[in-house]
Amino acid sequence: MNTLEARIKSDIREIPDFPKPGIGYKDITTLLDNPERFAEVIDAFKARYAEQNIDHIVAIESRGFIFGAPLAYALGVGLSLVRKPGKLPYKCHSVDYALEYGSDTVEMHIDAVKEGGRVLVIDDLLATGGTAAAACKLVEACGGEVVECAFLVELAFINAREAKLKDQKVFALATY
Amino acid sequence: MNTLEARIKSDIREIPDFPKPGIGYKDITTLLDNPERFAEVIDAFKARYAEQNIDHIVAIESRGFIFGAPLAYALGVGLSLVRKPGKLPYKCHSVDYALEYGSDTVEMHIDAVKEGGRVLVIDDLLATGGTAAAACKLVEACGGEVVECAFLVELAFINAREAKLKDQKVFALATY
Repeated sequence: MNTLEARIKSDIREIPDFPKPGIGYKDITTLLDNPERFAEVIDAFKARYAEQNIDHIVAIESRGFIFGAPLAYALGVGLSLVRKPGKLPYKCHSVDYALEYGSDTVEMHIDAVKEGGRVLVIDDLLATGGTAAAACKLVEACGGEVVECAFLVELAFINAREAKLKDQKVFALATY
Repeated sequence: MNTLEARIKSDIREIPDFPKPGIGYKDITTLLDNPERFAEVIDAFKARYAEQNIDHIVAIESRGFIFGAPLAYALGVGLSLVRKPGKLPYKCHSVDYALEYGSDTVEMHIDAVKEGGRVLVIDDLLATGGTAAAACKLVEACGGEVVECAFLVELAFINAREAKLKDQKVFALATY
């Protein structure tokens, strides 16, 4: 197949009715087990961000770690973690955000990003963008600057770019 | 400092009384934010396993992803995920294991490791070894062979090598 996007999509397995009826889940584990494709994905992110003076990759628990960690290694920059409450042992900033029903919270260590640091926020999949928007607020609480939010997959029909992430630059390697 | 182990220990932040009184928690986030050290860690694992014909890295949720994903990228091998119940969308093998109080369960996709595949199991920290032993059982349920279990940090005073991981080869970059 010609494009990286087409190759990514061909390696993602769609699981019908997961986690609930009517939802077609994008299963990336089949892509992760293809070393050639996984390397292409990390290298594509690396090519995009190598010249952007990134100081920290901020990776969102837990599948964001799968892309954020190799990208931090490939770029030679620091890796910082956004996690669910109670997982990070040091002093944290904390941000609540709304879900379809109820709310959720994410945390980041107060020293995870340096003042003025240029940050790339990364996760595997962009749906509503609620978690990514909360991660951006955590970066800003540390005094950092979000350069862009990057994803392997974007569910564009949900239109997070015009809603929860309207104040951020957004990039995805494959769009549905 | 002379040794990689000493440099790793100097980059790990100890948090007293987390998650409960009397426990000194090894906070690896300060190491992750040092790109030079993170690269040294991944490169040390790479050097150890480059000639061992590994087919899959099996990474344990969620901090195992932080080391497993860059190592899979660096070695050019597949990455497979061990996760908590309900997180993986396809058919899974499932293993229960005992905790100090109660029990826990981990899962892996039935096609995550190929029959006869040579597997490295990786996580950030070895304490009791309960989760790692369960991950080895998942690999074996797929018909794979565990070459070794690798960790950034081993709490050797708990002695998992002589108990829960006595049937496995174990390697750690830093030992307490």
